[in-house]
Amino acid sequence: MSRKWVYGFSEGQSDWKDLLGGKGANLAEMTNLGLPIPAGFTITTEACNAYLGGGNSLPDGLWDQVLEAMNAIEGDKKLGSTENPLLVSVRSGAKFSMPGMMDTVLNLGLNKKTAAALGALTGNPRFAMDSLRRLIQLYAKIVMNVPAELFEDALMDACASADVAEETDLTAEQLEGVADRYREIVREETGQEFPEDPYEQLRLAITAVFGSWNGRRARDYRRVNSIADDLGTAVNVQAMVFGNMGEDSGTGVAFTRNPATGEPGLFGEFLLNAQGEDVVAGIRTPNPIKALQEQMPGIYDEFASIADKLEARFSDMQDMEFTIERGTLYMLQTRVGKRTGGAAVRIAVDMVAEGRITKEEAVSRVDAESLDQLLHPMIDPQANVAKLAKGLPASPGAASGEICLDPDDAEDAAREGRQVLLVRTETAPEDFHGMVAASGILTSRGGMTSHAAVVARGMGKSCVCGAGEIRVDYAAETVTIGKRTFNKGDWLTIDGSSGRVYDGKVPTLEPELKGEFQTLMEWADAARTTQVRTNCDDPEGARTALKFGAEGIGLCRTEHMFFEGDRIKAMREMIVAETTEERERALAKLEPLQEEDFFGIFKAMDGNPVTIRTLDPPLHEFLPHEDAEIESLAAEVGIAFPALKARIAALREANPMLGFRGCRLGLLYPEITSMQARSIIKAALRAKADGATVLPEIMIPLVSDVAELREQVRVVREAATAAMEEQGETVDYMVGTMIELPRAALLADEIAEIAEFFSFGTNDLTQTAFGLSRDDSGTFLPQYLQNRWFDSDPFQVLDQRGVGKLVEMGTRLGRSTRKDLKVGICGEHGGEPSSVKFCIQTGLNYVSCSPYRVPIARLAAAQQAIADKQASPAGNDSAGPAEKSAAAGA
Amino acid sequence: MSRKWVYGFSEGQSDWKDLLGGKGANLAEMTNLGLPIPAGFTITTEACNAYLGGGNSLPDGLWDQVLEAMNAIEGDKKLGSTENPLLVSVRSGAKFSMPGMMDTVLNLGLNKKTAAALGALTGNPRFAMDSLRRLIQLYAKIVMNVPAELFEDALMDACASADVAEETDLTAEQLEGVADRYREIVREETGQEFPEDPYEQLRLAITAVFGSWNGRRARDYRRVNSIADDLGTAVNVQAMVFGNMGEDSGTGVAFTRNPATGEPGLFGEFLLNAQGEDVVAGIRTPNPIKALQEQMPGIYDEFASIADKLEARFSDMQDMEFTIERGTLYMLQTRVGKRTGGAAVRIAVDMVAEGRITKEEAVSRVDAESLDQLLHPMIDPQANVAKLAKGLPASPGAASGEICLDPDDAEDAAREGRQVLLVRTETAPEDFHGMVAASGILTSRGGMTSHAAVVARGMGKSCVCGAGEIRVDYAAETVTIGKRTFNKGDWLTIDGSSGRVYDGKVPTLEPELKGEFQTLMEWADAARTTQVRTNCDDPEGARTALKFGAEGIGLCRTEHMFFEGDRIKAMREMIVAETTEERERALAKLEPLQEEDFFGIFKAMDGNPVTIRTLDPPLHEFLPHEDAEIESLAAEVGIAFPALKARIAALREANPMLGFRGCRLGLLYPEITSMQARSIIKAALRAKADGATVLPEIMIPLVSDVAELREQVRVVREAATAAMEEQGETVDYMVGTMIELPRAALLADEIAEIAEFFSFGTNDLTQTAFGLSRDDSGTFLPQYLQNRWFDSDPFQVLDQRGVGKLVEMGTRLGRSTRKDLKVGICGEHGGEPSSVKFCIQTGLNYVSCSPYRVPIARLAAAQQAIADKQASPAGNDSAGPAEKSAAAGA
Repeated sequence: MSRKWVYGFSEGQSDWKDLLGGKGANLAEMTNLGLPIPAGFTITTEACNAYLGGGNSLPDGLWDQVLEAMNAIEGDKKLGSTENPLLVSVRSGAKFSMPGMMDTVLNLGLNKKTAAALGALTGNPRFAMDSLRRLIQLYAKIVMNVPAELFEDALMDACASADVAEETDLTAEQLEGVADRYREIVREETGQEFPEDPYEQLRLAITAVFGSWNGRRARDYRRVNSIADDLGTAVNVQAMVFGNMGEDSGTGVAFTRNPATGEPGLFGEFLLNAQGEDVVAGIRTPNPIKALQEQMPGIYDEFASIADKLEARFSDMQDMEFTIERGTLYMLQTRVGKRTGGAAVRIAVDMVAEGRITKEEAVSRVDAESLDQLLHPMIDPQANVAKLAKGLPASPGAASGEICLDPDDAEDAAREGRQVLLVRTETAPEDFHGMVAASGILTSRGGMTSHAAVVARGMGKSCVCGAGEIRVDYAAETVTIGKRTFNKGDWLTIDGSSGRVYDGKVPTLEPELKGEFQTLMEWADAARTTQVRTNCDDPEGARTALKFGAEGIGLCRTEHMFFEGDRIKAMREMIVAETTEERERALAKLEPLQEEDFFGIFKAMDGNPVTIRTLDPPLHEFLPHEDAEIESLAAEVGIAFPALKARIAALREANPMLGFRGCRLGLLYPEITSMQARSIIKAALRAKADGATVLPEIMIPLVSDVAELREQVRVVREAATAAMEEQGETVDYMVGTMIELPRAALLADEIAEIAEFFSFGTNDLTQTAFGLSRDDSGTFLPQYLQNRWFDSDPFQVLDQRGVGKLVEMGTRLGRSTRKDLKVGICGEHGGEPSSVKFCIQTGLNYVSCSPYRVPIARLAAAQQAIADKQASPAGNDSAGPAEKSAAAGA
Repeated sequence: MSRKWVYGFSEGQSDWKDLLGGKGANLAEMTNLGLPIPAGFTITTEACNAYLGGGNSLPDGLWDQVLEAMNAIEGDKKLGSTENPLLVSVRSGAKFSMPGMMDTVLNLGLNKKTAAALGALTGNPRFAMDSLRRLIQLYAKIVMNVPAELFEDALMDACASADVAEETDLTAEQLEGVADRYREIVREETGQEFPEDPYEQLRLAITAVFGSWNGRRARDYRRVNSIADDLGTAVNVQAMVFGNMGEDSGTGVAFTRNPATGEPGLFGEFLLNAQGEDVVAGIRTPNPIKALQEQMPGIYDEFASIADKLEARFSDMQDMEFTIERGTLYMLQTRVGKRTGGAAVRIAVDMVAEGRITKEEAVSRVDAESLDQLLHPMIDPQANVAKLAKGLPASPGAASGEICLDPDDAEDAAREGRQVLLVRTETAPEDFHGMVAASGILTSRGGMTSHAAVVARGMGKSCVCGAGEIRVDYAAETVTIGKRTFNKGDWLTIDGSSGRVYDGKVPTLEPELKGEFQTLMEWADAARTTQVRTNCDDPEGARTALKFGAEGIGLCRTEHMFFEGDRIKAMREMIVAETTEERERALAKLEPLQEEDFFGIFKAMDGNPVTIRTLDPPLHEFLPHEDAEIESLAAEVGIAFPALKARIAALREANPMLGFRGCRLGLLYPEITSMQARSIIKAALRAKADGATVLPEIMIPLVSDVAELREQVRVVREAATAAMEEQGETVDYMVGTMIELPRAALLADEIAEIAEFFSFGTNDLTQTAFGLSRDDSGTFLPQYLQNRWFDSDPFQVLDQRGVGKLVEMGTRLGRSTRKDLKVGICGEHGGEPSSVKFCIQTGLNYVSCSPYRVPIARLAAAQQAIADKQASPAGNDSAGPAEKSAAAGA
């Protein structure tokens, strides 16, 4: 007796994906649930491997088993019958989904005679003939390798002869003529006939699907997705059903709950006497699913009960396709339904209340990224919008306002209570007050790390950057987008989540962090084991972040404090100082301002750790570039204009990202580090005296060698000790470092001799590991993604294989020196779910992200904690973070 | 009986450095050779550790042993004697040399009485009193912690009272007064007396030297140099001798051979009735050592015989110090003598001929870096020079010429046979013909990787870059340096090895690769096991490199070909093309030119591999930046001026190093890669048909992911196959990649699935691993080196701990996928000796460097091969390169 190569749907099981492929196993599952699935069977992956391994011949016994299985699925309808013909589909189905990579043949069983019978049965001969010519075309291409364009040409010729514009205008007779011409093409190209015999069609289709496993596309796909080549594909043969067989037939799609809101109850639409494509194509307007209850109450009840059963079985909201053929309901497909962030939260929480899933399942279920939709104002999906341009989605959320080109004007307008959108070619530190006043910021130049983008994200304000189609004319006070010109005062709307720019004032929806959201986040926090901090630079940001659940500050960028108002002047004085004395004089002006900011932050973050990074950016970023501004600075600081201009020019760098910045500043000008350390400690002492619990962590940026850190830590401790002695009080503080250069990760064991904590700066680490400037990548990264040379934008999603290897290595080496080293991440990846999960797997103690992404990080962290708990059952004491990362390391 | 803490010099051995320290062991060695060494003894490192570990008290028995040892060294002279007083020095001496890190006390034994005796004996009471006051000052500082400035002040007061300008004008009596005042200071500051008792002086000095092992400076030094803290220091106590005791006394320094030329025979100078300082200070003019033969023939013969003995013992040229005290010769020091590159070569080869060392020793002996002096014209050391300015040493060698500011003028002048120096603020591609015509290039802006620097190094032409003190005025045709203004036609000289700029025409010495050089290089090649290739871009460079011993080209930068003459126009047309068709049209103009260059290179390199890198630099580098040039380009390519200007502006990047360059160009414009692959293969086929053996290796730059490489290799292979089919001939070729980004090294196992070879681009790898732009580092790197935050400039010397870790990892991972992967290095480190040695230890197959550094690399490679051979004796089959690097890896 030969091996069992063929399984009827009722013989399979949902966990036999190795043998039956994903689709076959799923069809078996639905069949076993007793659902009305069109009959069919699955040919195993083993059969495929036997075929491919056996010189492309069907293994012994396979064909007999296929015939037997066909026999089993034939009822009233029979393959090849000229009265009631059975048509089948032949589809591939591997263990892992490989969408579009392998072949499918539909309507198999049609030929001259059965097509005529189908025409009569459906009362739609045109449909039957069109199905026939489609079968020949598809079959010839897939099974017989006839170039597709020959058929396209023939179809166009037929349209021309019939003097019609499109193939949809061809009659049944004309389509029959096309089918005849198609047969001739097959004959001319292959010397063979298109097989009229349905069983021959079936046999050849099966071998074609087997063969497609080794097709170029499929092999490429497997390589890219790391799928083994020896899995093979199963083949599913299934009876076709038709919803266009009269008014007792129909087709539809429905969700078990509302995918937009999460509201319980069937949600969907259907059409009578129609095929699936008709619902999707939008030629006829479908009816809401509730209408089916009136028109076919029995079918509706059956469907509703099936929907319930499927939801129970898969414990999730389902997206289903069904067809009614002559009064009989058939389920064609079910899958987990896509949903909005809001719906996801509501469904998850509701299903816990309904007892369908546990709280941990609810937490694991919601796509963390989708929460972003809930956290910012969004364009009302109902709104009628006119997109004008697209830029970079620099800071999420929607915002409308009158166009305002000048920061002073913006401030005035805001004072008058008007809502303005600040539109600039790019922003500079001196525009800060205008950015504060605006509801959103739109620039025509600059990338995701431009001044506008960074400052806007810090403030949680919408921003679209680098919208190249926009031309700003400051003199004329106009903004030109394509052929349209807008004046100052005209309204625009931006969507910082998508980068789109819209005409006028588009209605937006405010985020409502409703009951279900709070409930879900509480469950998440209960499951979570990793701390979530925030990146923020001022007391107000700190308070916002606390509301979003932040448990400390992971990155406070001191330089952002310098952009504001008069501070920039003192900062500039400091930068252009020629001597240490001049520099110290300018620093003395900044010190009380810094201290005040830090005091506010420590107060706001009472009881939570606050990591403050010393000065990081290239000094050039703080300086004016236009002659008028340089002249005014020259007057202020008492330097001759040409000398100042020369000094500013000398600070220009070929590659500022890799230039005089980070700890290099503090090493050459230790008085800067000293001033910062002093103001941090003085602020901490004040906040402590004021009753707050302060946990300051001072962080040195851009360290490449332990010697740099050692020297900076010496300066910090000296200043801190002096400040404490001066006040006669002490406060505990830590000094650590950013790990944001590959060399720092490689030598993290040495660096940990000095550093009391690490924080991975994965933005810079990504730039340096890839040799890729974030600001410049816009010219080629989109094509990289489109061609799949990169799976994702490494600035959005942490590159786990490469940059992640450095994170693992840095963590492992750091802890090899200092066992309990606290390690976190403060790059923007700290708020991206897959990156958060990776950080937890690598054993990091916390992630830190912008305030608005804190809930996303909390949810993602909870999901990883739950996954880890499941992977290591209680009692089986799992390895600690350090060992885990060591095991995962290089 | 107590432990033996003290060893007389005659009791020690040269290999007891652990116990006696380096200095003690060496003094023992010389004593054992029977040389006249002032008597002395060494207190062991164990004694130091016992002292430090025992609460800073001398271990049992130590003092008795010291007294005994003192007794043994006392002859006519005795410590504390008022007739013939013995003075001793007390010096630290650890196992590893820690210059200046620990304490030394000289002239110990002086007090009121012995100083008077010394004055009488030497007939120089002033010298005796000065020695005394110096002893009190040094002793008080080191042993008694009295601030040094108190003594400085007292000395200045004494000068003021005596109404003399400097201390050298004080009389013996006045100095005796100073000594008295010093004693008072000690009393005031410490409440203790300066010890008049010589034995108390000795005991306290010994404990002070012990204590200095744990001084701040010493601890810092050990940490930086990875010296263990528990080694301890030995203490050497040695009788002092004086060369100023009359005309039968004297002092001198001499080398066993001429350190400038290597010529055999004693070379040095001496002074009678003088101290060591007098020879060095240059107050009196010393006599050549030969004069000693006439003045003291016996002493001279004894010294010559000692010199010979020392050379024989240490098998190397010695640098010796000696003192003659009352007709008795004493050797004070011997050490291996420093020498010029030329002398090093001659001495090594001569010593083989003399049977003193083996050929391998000769090869190992010569500092590879010092060969650089032999390979370029150098400033005549005898010349009287006036330094005007200093820039970066961008391309070595000295060159003189008339100042020429315009490349066309330079070409004309060269045609007339005049020697010109091209002086520019910076150079651009269109200046290429002027650079070819000039004898050297001097710029006021730009770093070590500026256009001028890179092109000059490629041509082996002297270049000084970024000499900021120089102001070039094109309109006035003048060059201003400080207060001096030079006109076009005036002569300047540059030294590209030091970065110095000199006034006028300074005489230079041409390199002579004489007999000894050739001999040494032949021995080196016989010992060497690693290939040395060259980085060069044209047939002429290839021929030069072959003369220097290159065994192939490791890096041919195709873009350099585009800078020349008309080519830049076609290149620019290609860059500003808006469509693929336009781009292909421009590429078609470049293709025959590339093919011709490659043909010339393949012919020249007959039988040697040639690695050609596809287009790498940011396109912006090829474009004009001034309006006039842009206008002329606009006319040529038929694009409107504003559009072209906008296109050029759009190509500007924030960080071009990390921007649109390398394989990113070829991925977005595959037609460029295609053209380059086609012209390489066509040139290879032609050269092959012409009888040459061609080994083309096509190399893809700036790969960060295997997907990029896969796609570029596909394009290369497609073009290559088409070219071969077109010609009806085939040629073998390889396709590989640069590993120049950290991510490529981290994922080298994946990349090796596609790459047939790796070449480490350590310039870019250093920039990205450190996050450090070579062009911008000039503002802070000098201070890094000065403060020892970095041990060396990582662009000069490969950073073995960090960047080297990536090289090791990349090599190991690459070979884990492809066992026999060929791995090389083509960064500029490929010509730096310590880096070459590291590459060999890491298992690289070849190093590649600029033509003029090929001999240096050959010698360094030979030295490493010899070291490896010695480390793994024959028969003990050592681990292969791959395993070795795996063992060294993370």
